[in-house]
Amino acid sequence: MTVLTTHIGMSLDGFAAGPDQSAQHPVGVGGMRLHQWLLGTRAWYEHRGLEGGEDSVDSRVLAEAMRGIGSYIMGRRMFGGAAGPWDTGWRGWWGDEPSFQAPVFVLTHHPREPLVMKGGTTFTFVTEGIHAALEQAREASGDRTVSIAGGAKVVQQYLAAGLLDEMTIHLRPIVLGTGERLLENVGDPVLEPVEAVHSAKATHIRYRVVR
Amino acid sequence: MTVLTTHIGMSLDGFAAGPDQSAQHPVGVGGMRLHQWLLGTRAWYEHRGLEGGEDSVDSRVLAEAMRGIGSYIMGRRMFGGAAGPWDTGWRGWWGDEPSFQAPVFVLTHHPREPLVMKGGTTFTFVTEGIHAALEQAREASGDRTVSIAGGAKVVQQYLAAGLLDEMTIHLRPIVLGTGERLLENVGDPVLEPVEAVHSAKATHIRYRVVR
Repeated sequence: MTVLTTHIGMSLDGFAAGPDQSAQHPVGVGGMRLHQWLLGTRAWYEHRGLEGGEDSVDSRVLAEAMRGIGSYIMGRRMFGGAAGPWDTGWRGWWGDEPSFQAPVFVLTHHPREPLVMKGGTTFTFVTEGIHAALEQAREASGDRTVSIAGGAKVVQQYLAAGLLDEMTIHLRPIVLGTGERLLENVGDPVLEPVEAVHSAKATHIRYRVVR
Repeated sequence: MTVLTTHIGMSLDGFAAGPDQSAQHPVGVGGMRLHQWLLGTRAWYEHRGLEGGEDSVDSRVLAEAMRGIGSYIMGRRMFGGAAGPWDTGWRGWWGDEPSFQAPVFVLTHHPREPLVMKGGTTFTFVTEGIHAALEQAREASGDRTVSIAGGAKVVQQYLAAGLLDEMTIHLRPIVLGTGERLLENVGDPVLEPVEAVHSAKATHIRYRVVR
């Protein structure tokens, strides 16, 4: 069975996004600090077709994570903002050539035709819930993993439903103090750390969800 | 200068104790789950003068942590319960022979004579605040470290005051959902992970607090 995983940044005080998410601050005010470990890495540069970046522990973690992913699932807010009927001119806040470079299944209550972007990203809008999205993502992934891109609430839903197989937390050594918590409303899952790698920028911990 | 450190268990959702702390549940209901990584280790058995226990990654982490500690600071609640004038018959909830085996400085508003316990633990009660307690603990520690035993609020005070040099978080792969959070009211400290060691039971991350 295709593995369902997620790779998600978290502050030491448990936040996966800053407060007040908006077009200007897609991951909330201050939320980009959660992801700063990856932006300077060679793996990120290469993924975007650019030269440069640093070959580091963080770069290898990122390369390893991306290598295995066949498709993504994300929430409507992560695609591009608050709930409500679609403005079909709105193509999300990931630009013309989103960094996913893979099929992305967006959970929403509002039907919409798929959106084919440059560079291999297609946004498919799924209105039938998390099981349906997972089924479609699995089909699109083949023998590669399906990764939940976020946000926190989507991770929570899959974890609480017992559908998540693995979770890699990129634990940043920062205290946000406010924002959206990663692990709320998930019950009491049994997690087993199977790998931990650290740099000055993050501690990357991969957990297996034990059933 | 003597290093001020803390070694503290934290759940993946950021709690350092469970809710409803009492004599029956000194670290809150469910809070003992935060410390289960250490109870079966050889280092713990040896520390208590017993045979047995498992020689493991967790055991080595614990041995290393305890080896360097010359004295402890803790809050009044961690010594033994809610605030209020002392019942001087009450010797805390750590038993006749507490596991600290070192001088312990207890932050309190209520003066009391030092309490000499079996096995090398002396509880000294400090009413002049966190700086005074640190000064006394440093004097007692010699060239070994001073460790904040807890609870969370005491760690927060020293971190927010810029007095903490290092913090080792024993990150347990559990979700408590409720309790006392470790990193609240601490501002925006600059932390650098300098070491991370993991087992199936915990990820032990040592942070340097950058000034």
